[in-house]
Amino acid sequence: MVTWKITLEYDGRAFSGWQRQANARSVQEVVDTALTRIFGGERIVLHVAGRTDAGVHALGQVASFRAETPRTEDKVRMGLNTVLPDEVSCLSALQVEPEFHARRSALGKTYRYLVLERRDRSPFWAGRAANVRRPLDWAAIESALPDLVTTTDMSAFRGPACEARDPVRTVDRAAHTLVDGIHRLEFSGPGFLRYQVRIMVGTLLEIGMGRRPADDIPRILATRDRTSAGRTARPEGLYLVEVRY
Amino acid sequence: MVTWKITLEYDGRAFSGWQRQANARSVQEVVDTALTRIFGGERIVLHVAGRTDAGVHALGQVASFRAETPRTEDKVRMGLNTVLPDEVSCLSALQVEPEFHARRSALGKTYRYLVLERRDRSPFWAGRAANVRRPLDWAAIESALPDLVTTTDMSAFRGPACEARDPVRTVDRAAHTLVDGIHRLEFSGPGFLRYQVRIMVGTLLEIGMGRRPADDIPRILATRDRTSAGRTARPEGLYLVEVRY
Repeated sequence: MVTWKITLEYDGRAFSGWQRQANARSVQEVVDTALTRIFGGERIVLHVAGRTDAGVHALGQVASFRAETPRTEDKVRMGLNTVLPDEVSCLSALQVEPEFHARRSALGKTYRYLVLERRDRSPFWAGRAANVRRPLDWAAIESALPDLVTTTDMSAFRGPACEARDPVRTVDRAAHTLVDGIHRLEFSGPGFLRYQVRIMVGTLLEIGMGRRPADDIPRILATRDRTSAGRTARPEGLYLVEVRY
Repeated sequence: MVTWKITLEYDGRAFSGWQRQANARSVQEVVDTALTRIFGGERIVLHVAGRTDAGVHALGQVASFRAETPRTEDKVRMGLNTVLPDEVSCLSALQVEPEFHARRSALGKTYRYLVLERRDRSPFWAGRAANVRRPLDWAAIESALPDLVTTTDMSAFRGPACEARDPVRTVDRAAHTLVDGIHRLEFSGPGFLRYQVRIMVGTLLEIGMGRRPADDIPRILATRDRTSAGRTARPEGLYLVEVRY
């Protein structure tokens, strides 16, 4: 029995999210199917680092599984890139220590949210960045970012579907950069609540639009109330960039 | 009668190229149809700065036309972005001096070619950059670039379908940059022969692969013979970035 770690990139537009669902195409389903084929029909149980929602992208999603059938690392990676649909690719396939588990072994994750600040829609960024039509006050957004870097009860930034028992989370890093005309908001931490990044971003965008004061984050966190935070930002801007082990 | 200048962005994957063709979807056709609708059925004759080939993208294509029906600039731009398919957007629509002509008034153009140098295919760059699977010698490519900045007979970099009478062209600028992990080759000049940029890029990539010496460009130009240059690089990496007036 060999434990495998695979790193995947995918375009979230093509899928109903990571998790397998009836009557919808999930990333899990296409990867499962491809692995079963590569491992000669063996039944594969996939564990994933972070279940991405519908429309959310990944640049470095990680999954793990165990398999009996012997295969080389190159064969698995290249096999996946032959069998998988164009919207998913495998960046690496490695044989790892037996106790490795994509979710339980993860030490941290980085998410990125892309904002195209432009009056007119873009053929190249549709579905891959959130298009904000009016100029945002990025200085106000930058002044709010350090307030998110904390360990605290993040209930205010927690989606209704979140099943986590403990709402305390740590954000290690919250940063804004402008790369080739696209605004990036990046967040790193050991783990995030469901929708946490999208609600944080939605709140920051409202600060950038002048609908909230730049120092609103500590107040929002203190309420522990979802209704005091901003709207959930659209999924198409969100990327799972990296999982650290 | 008002003369109009419109700037367009489009994803070349969705089209058979700029030029109208029977049984294929061209950019010209969808823009023509949209303008006729916006100008109340008036017949519009479109002139374009540079006819892009099938699969080639534009970030700043320019077209001009004359119209009788009065319309505001905002109405034309926003109307186009409502009526046009998602793969094309209008960045500006301006009323200009009567003698303006998108092709004849152009002083220069900039083209960009994107290269994703990566072992595995990418869901995000498929159709939008050329994927080179093995590492290239970018230092060799950079040392060859200045040899392209010249005014000379460019017959060696001329595609078979090129109808230009005079094969002398000027390249003002040839540059390599690496932006967010994607290699960019950029070329500016008053005008280019058909396929010139793609043949120059194909030749540079062969230099980068070590199949040609880095000082091969002057020899190739001197032959004035297409067969001495490299292969025509694939269309998906090419973008018409800007037209200068």
